[in-house]
Amino acid sequence: MGLTEALAYLESTAGEREAELMELLRIPSVSTDSSRRGDVRRAAMWVQGAMARAGLAASVEDTDGHPVVYGERLDGPPGAPTVLVYGHYDVQPADERKDGWTHPPFDPIVRDQNVYARGATDDKGQMFTWIKAAEAWHHVGGPPVNLKFLIEGEEEIGSRNLGRWIDGNKERLEADVVLVSDSDQYGPGMPALTYGLRGLLYVEIRCYGPNEDLHSGQYGGAVMNPATALARILGRLHDDEGRVLVDGFYDHVRPLESWEREAFAALPHDERAYADGISVSETFGEVGYSTLERTWARPTLEVNGIFGGFAGAGAKTVLPCYAGAKVSARLVPDQDPLKVLEGLRTTVERLAPRGVRVTVTGPGPGATAVGDERFNPRAGEAETARAVIVDRDNPFVRAAGAALERGFGRAPVYIRSGGSIPIVLAFKEVLGLDTVLMGYGLPDDRAHGPNEKFHLPDFHRGCRASATFIAEAAGGS
Amino acid sequence: MGLTEALAYLESTAGEREAELMELLRIPSVSTDSSRRGDVRRAAMWVQGAMARAGLAASVEDTDGHPVVYGERLDGPPGAPTVLVYGHYDVQPADERKDGWTHPPFDPIVRDQNVYARGATDDKGQMFTWIKAAEAWHHVGGPPVNLKFLIEGEEEIGSRNLGRWIDGNKERLEADVVLVSDSDQYGPGMPALTYGLRGLLYVEIRCYGPNEDLHSGQYGGAVMNPATALARILGRLHDDEGRVLVDGFYDHVRPLESWEREAFAALPHDERAYADGISVSETFGEVGYSTLERTWARPTLEVNGIFGGFAGAGAKTVLPCYAGAKVSARLVPDQDPLKVLEGLRTTVERLAPRGVRVTVTGPGPGATAVGDERFNPRAGEAETARAVIVDRDNPFVRAAGAALERGFGRAPVYIRSGGSIPIVLAFKEVLGLDTVLMGYGLPDDRAHGPNEKFHLPDFHRGCRASATFIAEAAGGS
Repeated sequence: MGLTEALAYLESTAGEREAELMELLRIPSVSTDSSRRGDVRRAAMWVQGAMARAGLAASVEDTDGHPVVYGERLDGPPGAPTVLVYGHYDVQPADERKDGWTHPPFDPIVRDQNVYARGATDDKGQMFTWIKAAEAWHHVGGPPVNLKFLIEGEEEIGSRNLGRWIDGNKERLEADVVLVSDSDQYGPGMPALTYGLRGLLYVEIRCYGPNEDLHSGQYGGAVMNPATALARILGRLHDDEGRVLVDGFYDHVRPLESWEREAFAALPHDERAYADGISVSETFGEVGYSTLERTWARPTLEVNGIFGGFAGAGAKTVLPCYAGAKVSARLVPDQDPLKVLEGLRTTVERLAPRGVRVTVTGPGPGATAVGDERFNPRAGEAETARAVIVDRDNPFVRAAGAALERGFGRAPVYIRSGGSIPIVLAFKEVLGLDTVLMGYGLPDDRAHGPNEKFHLPDFHRGCRASATFIAEAAGGS
Repeated sequence: MGLTEALAYLESTAGEREAELMELLRIPSVSTDSSRRGDVRRAAMWVQGAMARAGLAASVEDTDGHPVVYGERLDGPPGAPTVLVYGHYDVQPADERKDGWTHPPFDPIVRDQNVYARGATDDKGQMFTWIKAAEAWHHVGGPPVNLKFLIEGEEEIGSRNLGRWIDGNKERLEADVVLVSDSDQYGPGMPALTYGLRGLLYVEIRCYGPNEDLHSGQYGGAVMNPATALARILGRLHDDEGRVLVDGFYDHVRPLESWEREAFAALPHDERAYADGISVSETFGEVGYSTLERTWARPTLEVNGIFGGFAGAGAKTVLPCYAGAKVSARLVPDQDPLKVLEGLRTTVERLAPRGVRVTVTGPGPGATAVGDERFNPRAGEAETARAVIVDRDNPFVRAAGAALERGFGRAPVYIRSGGSIPIVLAFKEVLGLDTVLMGYGLPDDRAHGPNEKFHLPDFHRGCRASATFIAEAAGGS
């Protein structure tokens, strides 16, 4: 018995599967809402039950926060690879009246083949495709690989306790690859395989001048103004053509390969619509690269916020004693965040005018600081995350490509993502595992917004793709 | 009877005069504290009584806020000039426990010839010298000039209702010069004549980008960042040598005269102590000018505050949709604030990178704005004030110089001030009057701070100087 039978099982059980998804969507497992603690646990129990019906040995495991659901089935053929599926059963908050929903967010409805409910795409619906794929293989005699499932309940609150749980379960989590379905297709009918994520360096830059705010009449013109000094630094971290001027910033940047540039250029992308969508007159970025290249595969540096002096209504004639900025860089392979930090520090110190003192620290207290804390921000180290990238020739990436083609009827596009997914980095750094990101959602699913939806045909295609991946990962269908 | 007799009267009544000053200092006339409304009025009544004893026809006149005390005596010799004395009887708040006072602020004590009390120097003690000078002349047969007194009760809360009162009393206020004692000597034993005040232009500069804060992972590198754009603008409003790069900024600047440069250079000024006093490693300003020249007589441009994006504790990966700054210029004769505004607008627009929209408005809502207001700050016109300067050869300036020399035993130094005094500008623009600023305080009197003081010998010297000015203004002692 093999993939054909597993897919036939999925075909014949589509109705029950939709009904089960509705059940899960009805549980308001809002992890950030302490009054929902019981509902979150109820969702965990529900997932455990679904795993058990899929032939997995599953358990709800406590953490200091919401539980992890762990399941496994290790009876694959000798030498078969082990696939670790990661997902989450918790959801973002949703309030029908306050957040603009047109129906109760935990009372799913179906319109135009879309199921509308909080968590429909993020991540209950997408995660559930993997449980149903396991169930299909269970029904036809067992999967040709070993399967492990790690489904957490705190993804929407920063996976607070997952790192510790992983540290305590490294051996149980031994595997050959991690599979995650918690992202989008590139567009309708365009399944996507995300093979790269950018890394991050997040710091706070501060310029300190006088020991307290001065009267700008009495002192204006006599000392270097910390806000002016900060502006001079921030204004010189890019050239006029969008290149980052931090020392050594591009030293270890892995260039885009020619197949990537061709693949990205072949994607449908309307620059005018993109700019209109965020109400800017035009896009802007590093010269010589397209918008997709800039956001997916080039390192960038952005000011996230600035503060200092008087920012209230009206006028106050002060010369501020300090000014600061939150600044972050998105990194690509093979940049080392700590080397970039070092270059940033050197650059900021070189750009700083005389008469002010500059610091580059971790993201500190921002403008909320008072008293002496201003001068000694209790900032830890800078936040850092390396970029991750999976080789297109990795056998599991090839397996995922074939699975998406079988599930969606069309070969996937290979894309990267501009953001970072901390858990993917943890899988790499703690478990030594590459992660394959197979996204079944659509860009307009409104994952954290009102009227979140999941297109039901994509749900079923996703189940087929997940089941097919299990066959492909084993070495062919 | 003349000045000699008036000074003798002052000499013989020093003890009573100190006792009267203590009485006035005991009235907690804190204009900003609505629970002190009765005390503020009590102080006004007290001042009216003192004026009456000095031979003035005095009245307490209501406004929409605290009352004005107006007094006059117009029986000077035919052709005698009219001197309008301005001062205030209200004081800053002072709380013994919270503000670091070492004794009750409205229970004056004398130590080392200093009287310690809120309002001692600012402005009860200094203002009172003029009432006592009038009294001395009253005692010896009447002053050789016409005298008018305008003593307000809202100086510490921005003289909110004084402008309207002046508008309604223009004829009563007709005079030849305004005298104000509400400032400091240059140093102990160094009486000063302040003959120039800087003007002001205060605006808010904003850069607008996308219609809402963007995810810096998803969009970082794709659009011009408004905070970066703002930094580039603010960072290019000065050159590396401290010159302001606003179009036409220096076009109408009246150069320092050579006697001024010599006079300022001759003043004791310890640059190291100045920098240490505000905890900066070094001073910085326009090349070719000293610190005193930069702050008193050169136009300057300062950032008063910056805001935009995330300024809280920790990290948030946003690309801000706008960023703004409060920016003000201190102006000197003969700059026109509106021309400077026009130059600033042109400069900002030229420096603005493509992809953002910039505005230069009056001081708007700052970072407190929400919703649509961000994009349409309800900002009125920019705040503007011309600089004022009085000619050293003005006869009343010469009279003040002679009076200070007689009162303090030393010829005054001629100084300017970096700040603006709105009421002085109003006297010029509404009444057409020059103002002479004769300061009797000391730089360490802590006018708005804890343990405010007034040196009693300076109080008595001030009375002599005020009485002498009356003689000098009439054409000689």
